[in-house]
Amino acid sequence: MAVENAPVVGIIMGSESDMPAMQPCMDQLDAFGVPYEVKVASAHRKPAVVHEWASTAHQRGIRVIVAAAGKAAHLGGVVAAYTPNPVITVPMKTSDLGGLDSLLSMVQMPSGVPVACVAINGAKNAAILAVQILGAGDDAARRQIIDFKESMAQ
Amino acid sequence: MAVENAPVVGIIMGSESDMPAMQPCMDQLDAFGVPYEVKVASAHRKPAVVHEWASTAHQRGIRVIVAAAGKAAHLGGVVAAYTPNPVITVPMKTSDLGGLDSLLSMVQMPSGVPVACVAINGAKNAAILAVQILGAGDDAARRQIIDFKESMAQ
Amino acid sequence: MAVENAPVVGIIMGSESDMPAMQPCMDQLDAFGVPYEVKVASAHRKPAVVHEWASTAHQRGIRVIVAAAGKAAHLGGVVAAYTPNPVITVPMKTSDLGGLDSLLSMVQMPSGVPVACVAINGAKNAAILAVQILGAGDDAARRQIIDFKESMAQ
Amino acid sequence: MAVENAPVVGIIMGSESDMPAMQPCMDQLDAFGVPYEVKVASAHRKPAVVHEWASTAHQRGIRVIVAAAGKAAHLGGVVAAYTPNPVITVPMKTSDLGGLDSLLSMVQMPSGVPVACVAINGAKNAAILAVQILGAGDDAARRQIIDFKESMAQ
Amino acid sequence: MAVENAPVVGIIMGSESDMPAMQPCMDQLDAFGVPYEVKVASAHRKPAVVHEWASTAHQRGIRVIVAAAGKAAHLGGVVAAYTPNPVITVPMKTSDLGGLDSLLSMVQMPSGVPVACVAINGAKNAAILAVQILGAGDDAARRQIIDFKESMAQ
Amino acid sequence: MAVENAPVVGIIMGSESDMPAMQPCMDQLDAFGVPYEVKVASAHRKPAVVHEWASTAHQRGIRVIVAAAGKAAHLGGVVAAYTPNPVITVPMKTSDLGGLDSLLSMVQMPSGVPVACVAINGAKNAAILAVQILGAGDDAARRQIIDFKESMAQ
Amino acid sequence: MAVENAPVVGIIMGSESDMPAMQPCMDQLDAFGVPYEVKVASAHRKPAVVHEWASTAHQRGIRVIVAAAGKAAHLGGVVAAYTPNPVITVPMKTSDLGGLDSLLSMVQMPSGVPVACVAINGAKNAAILAVQILGAGDDAARRQIIDFKESMAQ
Amino acid sequence: MAVENAPVVGIIMGSESDMPAMQPCMDQLDAFGVPYEVKVASAHRKPAVVHEWASTAHQRGIRVIVAAAGKAAHLGGVVAAYTPNPVITVPMKTSDLGGLDSLLSMVQMPSGVPVACVAINGAKNAAILAVQILGAGDDAARRQIIDFKESMAQ
Repeated sequence: MAVENAPVVGIIMGSESDMPAMQPCMDQLDAFGVPYEVKVASAHRKPAVVHEWASTAHQRGIRVIVAAAGKAAHLGGVVAAYTPNPVITVPMKTSDLGGLDSLLSMVQMPSGVPVACVAINGAKNAAILAVQILGAGDDAARRQIIDFKESMAQ
Repeated sequence: MAVENAPVVGIIMGSESDMPAMQPCMDQLDAFGVPYEVKVASAHRKPAVVHEWASTAHQRGIRVIVAAAGKAAHLGGVVAAYTPNPVITVPMKTSDLGGLDSLLSMVQMPSGVPVACVAINGAKNAAILAVQILGAGDDAARRQIIDFKESMAQ
Repeated sequence: MAVENAPVVGIIMGSESDMPAMQPCMDQLDAFGVPYEVKVASAHRKPAVVHEWASTAHQRGIRVIVAAAGKAAHLGGVVAAYTPNPVITVPMKTSDLGGLDSLLSMVQMPSGVPVACVAINGAKNAAILAVQILGAGDDAARRQIIDFKESMAQ
Repeated sequence: MAVENAPVVGIIMGSESDMPAMQPCMDQLDAFGVPYEVKVASAHRKPAVVHEWASTAHQRGIRVIVAAAGKAAHLGGVVAAYTPNPVITVPMKTSDLGGLDSLLSMVQMPSGVPVACVAINGAKNAAILAVQILGAGDDAARRQIIDFKESMAQ
Repeated sequence: MAVENAPVVGIIMGSESDMPAMQPCMDQLDAFGVPYEVKVASAHRKPAVVHEWASTAHQRGIRVIVAAAGKAAHLGGVVAAYTPNPVITVPMKTSDLGGLDSLLSMVQMPSGVPVACVAINGAKNAAILAVQILGAGDDAARRQIIDFKESMAQ
Repeated sequence: MAVENAPVVGIIMGSESDMPAMQPCMDQLDAFGVPYEVKVASAHRKPAVVHEWASTAHQRGIRVIVAAAGKAAHLGGVVAAYTPNPVITVPMKTSDLGGLDSLLSMVQMPSGVPVACVAINGAKNAAILAVQILGAGDDAARRQIIDFKESMAQ
Repeated sequence: MAVENAPVVGIIMGSESDMPAMQPCMDQLDAFGVPYEVKVASAHRKPAVVHEWASTAHQRGIRVIVAAAGKAAHLGGVVAAYTPNPVITVPMKTSDLGGLDSLLSMVQMPSGVPVACVAINGAKNAAILAVQILGAGDDAARRQIIDFKESMAQ
Repeated sequence: MAVENAPVVGIIMGSESDMPAMQPCMDQLDAFGVPYEVKVASAHRKPAVVHEWASTAHQRGIRVIVAAAGKAAHLGGVVAAYTPNPVITVPMKTSDLGGLDSLLSMVQMPSGVPVACVAINGAKNAAILAVQILGAGDDAARRQIIDFKESMAQ
């Protein structure tokens, strides 16, 4: 149901190869019925595309961003530099250092420009966090989270 | 101005000794004029207090939580288990492992219960992220973030 | 022989997927003839279940607890917060960081609430340690450990 | 009150220089009124002394051992090889690697001979865990832990 | 002598606080008589400034760039995205993780956009490498490196 | 086209087993039409060969060197000791520590003798960086990089 | 030819499962024609066996010891405590932490009792080092090393 | 007594700044009455000096080498490439990574050219190991080690 309504979550990933690891994010947003858009663009290879996408996201109605990347994972920080939206980052597991490089590249953001980092390959959790963030200002979304937590607790 | 209005951000930390490292969070929320409440309670030493505080936070009007702890830093995860609110976690620097233990204990949350982790000792960024999260559903808060980013860019 | 007598060891794990890695714990307790109970419940997804199980364990006759979990492995600490029993923790190996995250999340417990951490995936050792702990107050259990060590030394 | 009664906890440390870091262990045992003995002997420099001390401990009435060492911290494992008692290990913080070396040298014990590892420099927690272990077979000790946890929770 | 001639090395650092650690870079370039320019601008706080500086550097005559930053050190990667020049990155030592975060954030650049990473706080080496790079296409600069290496070997 | 013209890039690797991981370097240089030479020689097993190759490289017309090695990866540093050329190092992924050993052995060069380190197994990026370095003194090479970056950005 | 003459190298490993990883050590000693003996005994499971073997080795004519073990790899240190011989340690690769645990448990020996640590799974190098050590007091063995190095250099 | 007899131990360190950390090595050799020589030369800054020193050491009567260096610590490996002597390496503690870089750069030597690595800043142990190595072929030296171990055990 990603396209039925105007997207409120914007998902961006650094490479097409991140798509399988990020699928649980899209699936979970679908399960919540939250409309989203997906963009594949590297902060390093396509900086202008990322700049444009990030700096206009909130004007398109995007309220939360999810950014996934691996290795020297700058995508989340670059997006965060250009948007007032909260940016959830998903460090991708890497074949050599297991994702420790992606994790530190994302979570250790310097003062002034935070991101909200989840676990290595934590795609599903990124979706849940996105809805929790929507729920901070939207009773229906918060209600979805309460129901989701109750169903897990069974 | 923390007490003028009903708090919308709830700050919890595992120990009184985390207070100096977390002061920039309170200062930054003050700078934004965002009302908050502060609680000191260890997830391990005072589990019932944490349980009560966390599970009632959203009923008191809290919309975003900031949880700071060090070492085997379970506070954020324990709070996240009991609240539908988004939970920002601040891993405290430790004297032996530099905070790598706090960081991994916070960021690597298992599937179903995310937290939004910021950098080790990233107290100021936790405040900014909290306001970004409020801004996802509140144009005035988002406007504050846009202004804040513009002032940084000067 | 796990059910013949009232269980004295309580085993809890964060996820059904931890069961194969924990099987050597149950097998070793069976070999010692020590009755145990097994619970699967996540500290994050089912906090009330964990709370109830942990806080009543010693009243049910449980004298030692074994808690296994992975990633941001809070289960052992959460259980330890609610029980006077000694809590042995088994950090589960993880696919990205090899279990370093689970290990640090378990072993670095803050002051006041210890756990007894064994090696990553050290399920069999958790069982031996449980019987050693029983042996601290029970000559028959200690005798079993002495015999076990002698048979290893052959 | 360490010498009033026959010691039930045996504390061993690899070097005189570990004494200040281990003082909270003795203090906490004193607070609980649990009699203990203290030995300083390196597993590498004085192996025969350690061998003798460890293999006779349970015959002297020791029911729980606490072993503290740093760097390639073999003391806990060496003691565990010679005693049926549960062995709590305290990895000492090191000046170069922060204690990660001590921690891995202690916690990653191979199959058959576990130790109960606490946090880096977790001396106070070692004492609490020792009493919890005594409490597994002794209602008075367990009662002390229950009271201790209740006083912390205030 | 930094301003006597048109700069050929462009130095950028993420924060004014990086200046002392980077001083040996400027000193060494001065010793070689290589003109340079210095810019302080965070990739996250002032992305437009960095974008403008990086994308025009080669048009101003800059032939090598040195970028220094700490923590989630994206500056080098962001600059590299916008310039055809080789970009030398200097990971800044950090107070919590010693600079491992800065290092991995810089060196692990994904395919297509390399940087030339030197050691943590390797400011002097960044200057030497910059002149070696100039020397790849300039016999006088290469001669300076040969002389420098000979003087070190004395 | 590696042999059509006099090589300007010299590639050296520590072992024949590094060849597959380094193939993307050769392929990318072929794509750029940059002539190169390839040498396999261990700094430890064949030090005289490495010494001879490295100290004469710039006299043969080599302007940039790429050195790949794994584990205690000294090859880049040894080559850098003997040549005025810039030396790009490629840390090889290792089966036990994932390449962290190779990376630290390469990037942490002491003062006076830098190398330009790229990512673990970053063979393709080493080739791109080599051409960027050539481009610092050669407009045609820089033009190739500009074109390459533009084609990536599409 | 391991049994033709009295062994001068004693090889000990913690587990039968280390045998395949240690085979290159035996093969290389065979290639050098150096007689050796092999023992499998865990420092933790069979401490008396290790004690006996290590403390009598030099009396049996053993002049160098090679000790291989994994995880909390105490074998080398325990052997070194009981023998005046130099002890070469081979940290075994582990399935969770890659051998970093074995390495730190071996190499970080405290003051007074050194071991000579080689690389993770460095079995072949342990054999070469053993012959180098023999060569320190035996011209024929040193000659073998000189020849070996020359043949490698071809 | 370092100069009374022809030196049999050769000590080399990468920088004059390593001297204080290495003083315990010289002191311990003095205590054993073992003659030694000391050289300060960087493998990177003075490769020809190191080459000459290392390749002639055994001809000057040196039977064991001790090499100390920090960061990307290639000195031990470079020396080992040029000498048939056993090479003991001492990784120097570093201010950013604590010496983990030095350690991995030294201990992870590739196949064919081993070094005997001791602990970070393990200067005293390097001296003891050197005498143990001499003792492998010299009864008087071995006797010294036996006496030394006995005096430690008191």
